[in-house]
Parts: sequence; C-alpha cells; structure tokens
Amino acid sequence: MILPKKAVQEMEPYDPPLEGRRDKLRLDFSENTVGPSPRVLKALEKLNDNEFACYPEYTKFINKIASNINVSPQEILLTNASDEAIKVIYDTYIEKGDEIVIPIPTFTMFRVYADIAEAKVKSVSYAKNLTFPTKKVLDAITKKTKILILVNPNNPTGTPIEKKDLFKIVEKAAKTETIVIIDEAYYQFSEETALGLIGKFDNLFILQTFSKAYGLAGLRLGYIASDPDNIKNLKRVASPYSVNTAAMVAASTAIDDQDYLKWYVGEVKKGKKVLEEGLKQLKIKTFPTTGNFLIANFGKKAIEIKDQLKEKGILVRDRSHLPLLKDCLRVSIGTSSQAKQFIQTLREILGK
Amino acid sequence: MILPKKAVQEMEPYDPPLEGRRDKLRLDFSENTVGPSPRVLKALEKLNDNEFACYPEYTKFINKIASNINVSPQEILLTNASDEAIKVIYDTYIEKGDEIVIPIPTFTMFRVYADIAEAKVKSVSYAKNLTFPTKKVLDAITKKTKILILVNPNNPTGTPIEKKDLFKIVEKAAKTETIVIIDEAYYQFSEETALGLIGKFDNLFILQTFSKAYGLAGLRLGYIASDPDNIKNLKRVASPYSVNTAAMVAASTAIDDQDYLKWYVGEVKKGKKVLEEGLKQLKIKTFPTTGNFLIANFGKKAIEIKDQLKEKGILVRDRSHLPLLKDCLRVSIGTSSQAKQFIQTLREILGK
Repeated sequence: MILPKKAVQEMEPYDPPLEGRRDKLRLDFSENTVGPSPRVLKALEKLNDNEFACYPEYTKFINKIASNINVSPQEILLTNASDEAIKVIYDTYIEKGDEIVIPIPTFTMFRVYADIAEAKVKSVSYAKNLTFPTKKVLDAITKKTKILILVNPNNPTGTPIEKKDLFKIVEKAAKTETIVIIDEAYYQFSEETALGLIGKFDNLFILQTFSKAYGLAGLRLGYIASDPDNIKNLKRVASPYSVNTAAMVAASTAIDDQDYLKWYVGEVKKGKKVLEEGLKQLKIKTFPTTGNFLIANFGKKAIEIKDQLKEKGILVRDRSHLPLLKDCLRVSIGTSSQAKQFIQTLREILGK
Repeated sequence: MILPKKAVQEMEPYDPPLEGRRDKLRLDFSENTVGPSPRVLKALEKLNDNEFACYPEYTKFINKIASNINVSPQEILLTNASDEAIKVIYDTYIEKGDEIVIPIPTFTMFRVYADIAEAKVKSVSYAKNLTFPTKKVLDAITKKTKILILVNPNNPTGTPIEKKDLFKIVEKAAKTETIVIIDEAYYQFSEETALGLIGKFDNLFILQTFSKAYGLAGLRLGYIASDPDNIKNLKRVASPYSVNTAAMVAASTAIDDQDYLKWYVGEVKKGKKVLEEGLKQLKIKTFPTTGNFLIANFGKKAIEIKDQLKEKGILVRDRSHLPLLKDCLRVSIGTSSQAKQFIQTLREILGK
C-alpha cells in the first residue's frame, strides 16, 4: 500500500448504506419515492447508438435549465450532481489552510471535501431546537473566511433559513469577500430560492439538483448558478464532460413536465401532514422542516426502531451520532399513502 | 467576480470542441464510431422509474467487471470515467509541491489536474519519432517522484510501451515509492494490459474506461484497478455515488456482448490498414500506433485540410500546437468503410 497524504489518512471513511434498497420503501435518502415523470423513460427509449458512443453536448440543455430557473446560460455550470459541484468550487478557490465555515449538523460532503482540500473548518452549531443560528453565523464570518456553507433547507434537519437572515449573511459575506455556497437541493419543497440574488452578489454560488424532487438521483445531475465570471473560472477546473447524456435527456424531459413535479410536491405536502400528525399522536417529537424529510426523536430505542422498520421493509436513516441529533432518525416524507404506511408500521412496532 | 486561487488563475482553460458533432463522421475524439452493442439500448429500455429515483447500487456490477478483467472486486474503484479516476488519485496522494512526471505530449487532463493540485510537473519528452522515451523516464524517477504517468498506448500519439520497458519502470518506481498510473483507455485495441502486475506491485494504478472500444463515452464510466488497500484509501476521497445507473446497466450489458467488442476491434484493425495505406499513397507521414487513432503529418496545410474535411462532414482533431506534433492531425480509425470514406474525401480535397 502507498500511504495517502496526511489529511486523507486522518479522514473517517464516509460509506453511506446504499446497497439493497430497491425492494424497500426508501425513506432514508430523501429521494423522490415514486420516480420521475413517466415521460422520462420514453425519452430515454428514443436515444440512439450515436448518443451513447459520442461525448455529451451540453449547450441546448444549459439553455433550457437557464430559462427554467430564469438566469442566463452563462450563469450555469452543469455538474455530476451536487458532490461534484462542491468539489469544483473548493478546487477553484481553496488553498491549504483556508477557512470554511460550516453550520452543523449538515450534509457530510461539505466536510469531506474540505478535509481533502486541507482547509481549516470552523463549525458553527445549529441551535438546540435546530433553528438556524443566524447571529453565530454572522459573527463567524471574517476577512479570513474563504467560504461559508448554507444548506437551505438544511439536510438532515430540514431547517429553513429566513429570507431576511439569508440576505444579511450574504451581504456581510460580500464585504469580507467570502464565497457563500447555498445548497438548495430541496428548494422545490420549500419553494424558497436565492437565485434572484445572483445578479446582485458575485460571491454567491447556488447548488441545485435533479436528484430529489425530480426523481433522478440514479442519473447524477446538478448545476451551479453564479456570476458569469465565476462560472468561467469554475470551468477551468471542472472536467469538460462529467455529466452524462442519459441524465441530460432525462432532466430535459423532466423539466418539460412541470405538472408532474407539482403533483409530487403536493403529495409530499399531504404526506408531511400525515407524518407529523401521526408522530405527534405517538408522542414522538419532530422538528420543523421545509424539506421532503424530517428529524424525529425516537428516544433510547431509536436504533432498535430503525432496525425493526427495516425488517418490515421500510428504510429510515440513523442520524443519532450527529451533533444535536442524539436518538434521532431522519425520515423522508414521500406521498401521503407512503406516510400512512410508515405511521401504520410504526404503530405496530410500538404496539400502539 | 471572486478571484480563484493562484494556481487556477494561471491555468489555460481546456475547452475541447465537443459541440455539433452528431451529424458528422466523428474521427476526432477516438470514440467508438458506430456505437455500443445493440443490446445496450434494449437493456436501458428495461429500466424502471425506481432505478432513476434511487441512488445507484454498485456491488453486483463491480463483481462483474472484476470477473471480466480477472482481478478481485476489492481491487476495483468505479469512477465517472477516467477524468474522475485521475482526480481521485491526485486528491488522495498529492500535496502542494509534490512531483508528478508526465511524458509529453499526452492526454491533457493529467496536466490540468496536476496544476489544480499545485503539483510540480516534470515533463519528459517523447522521442522525435514519437517512440516512448524509456531511458529518460527511468532517469526522471527519483525518491522525489510521487506519481509517474504512463498512457499505453499514448493519446494522442498512439505509441505503445514495450512490455519489458514498462516492467523495468514499474520496478524502479516501486523502489522509489512512486505511484505509477497507467492509463489503458485503448487497451482493447492494443491488446496489452498491465492488470497482471497488480498482485505484484502495490504502486500500480490502472485506468480503464467504457468510453472507447465499448462505445459508451456519452454515459461516463471507468474504473481504477489497484491493490485493495489503495482502493480503500481512494474510497475515502471519491464521491460515494459518482457513477450513474444508466452507465452501469449499459456497461454491464456491453461486457456480456464480447462478440460485438471483438467485431468492432476487428473492424478497427481493417480500418487501420486502409488508413495507413491510403495516407502512404498520398505521401502523408504517419506514426506507428496500437490505438484506434493515429497521428499524421499533413504539412503546412494541416489546419486548412482539417477545415475542409469538416466542411465535407468529417471531423479530425488538430494536435499541431502540441510538442513534437507540428503540422499534425489526429485521425480516429473507425471501421474499414469509414476509413475508406476518409481517404476518398481526403483525395478529393488534395485533388489526387
């Protein structure tokens, strides 16, 4: 074995439990729980051999995304989902020892890639009631802060950031020349986006993805929206063909079917009511969420309950080892009938 | 605009001409020129909504690749094609200032990612007749060399590395604890691989891809084969789900159709004869190749000829700005009938 660099030796391996999920009710990774628009499969069936053999061409598709989210094509960089988006931004701006401020708990890869880049991570804790720590974040931003991470709504807590708080933060970060990455993976559910601020602030990098509401996690596609000059710089660093043709064709078709997207988002809204009310009746504490998932405190038996749910074909995600989340599981919301199925199964397990 | 880190500011943007190629005869990017096994499309048609919405699961597919190339599954890391493979290896091992030895001219991304990693690149020139500079490479490897790049056969020159030379190099690199990356993107055409050395040397990282002979460039899939402990370290750094499900299903089906692969490799062999003889008759110098492409010196009118070919629907790649390749174009070989079409069109252009 050849020894990796020191920073990598010290990292904890991140190995999410992604195998053997396909025959289960997947309430563990906040994916779309029923699949993308049925038009997607038909569009993929129309692909021909040439499309597979040939390197991808992105121009038309970028135009389509741009028009869908109301920015210019020059403000978009396609990425192999959000993981590559984070990586490309860090690779473009972070030198060894640069400071990254990360409110925690949050999506793991922000920290993993910070460690690889040998950045200095300054963690800011969410409040005990899991609300966003606006004041602490504002205080944490200094001239030394190269990048600030905002996840809105936050994964795994579901916490939204108030519009006026977010604006204050971006404004202060602009003064300290701090990059603000806003991960909006779940924005179709929260119906909140900072895309409108891109023309006003050149320190903003917004991450969106087709992995969640659009139901295309398996195909890997996301994008960064930012100032056109920033996008040019990111392009020096990004692989010129990291996004695959199947993802592009699927996403293009999914964009065309906004009715389906609306239907799914509506289903999750209904599912949320079922889930929150059901858990309340079972005296299981939940926290406010604007995503398609929620954090629930199952007490000392959390892991046991997670395992029993799995035996009964329902997957949820153990988040109990994360800061502030002792005894907590993350449950994706899904459709109303899936939420009912979850509550019913939980009742059986708890004998109630 | 937020200024990128210094190393990125100094980089040349790499922006390969990948748009508008689909209606042309694509002899410019060394892809498969006719497409993958026809079984691939049928396999993709069988995918269901669940497969799109769900994060990819890799275990079965890794087992299949391992058995196909005769290594153990623990010796494989899937990557979003070779670009990510290079990136992950650099990210795992390279610290700022570490030395990477690169024989040039070669595949651009080895240099691009070295610059991003702020590595010190020591370039070693191929010989003027484009043969592999074994002695110079052996001399270049010292205790200070963290990584040596070998591309076999080399892109864009097509140059093979003799088995005994390669062995000598890997042996010396093992003594200096130098990682040897061998990019074997075209090994199905050269029918030479160093996979058999993985059990003997723990400093070897072999890159293979489904983008070339298998005809799946559009779907983005490759892998790294190395010592199991190295693979474990790479996994700390790699995104846990960078490879998409469509690529995996397509590649799995393509592996099952070895007859088709053999047929295509045979076609390229025939095409090579047609191309080499045709160019010889036209007094255009070519260089020995074991890949599915060759370098040809078209003299002062190289760019003009490239443009005229494009007007007539045939794409070739200008490589004339690269070291040693003044006046040279790279021509992918394709099938015998495509090679005939190329020679016929070239004759017309040259008025011969």
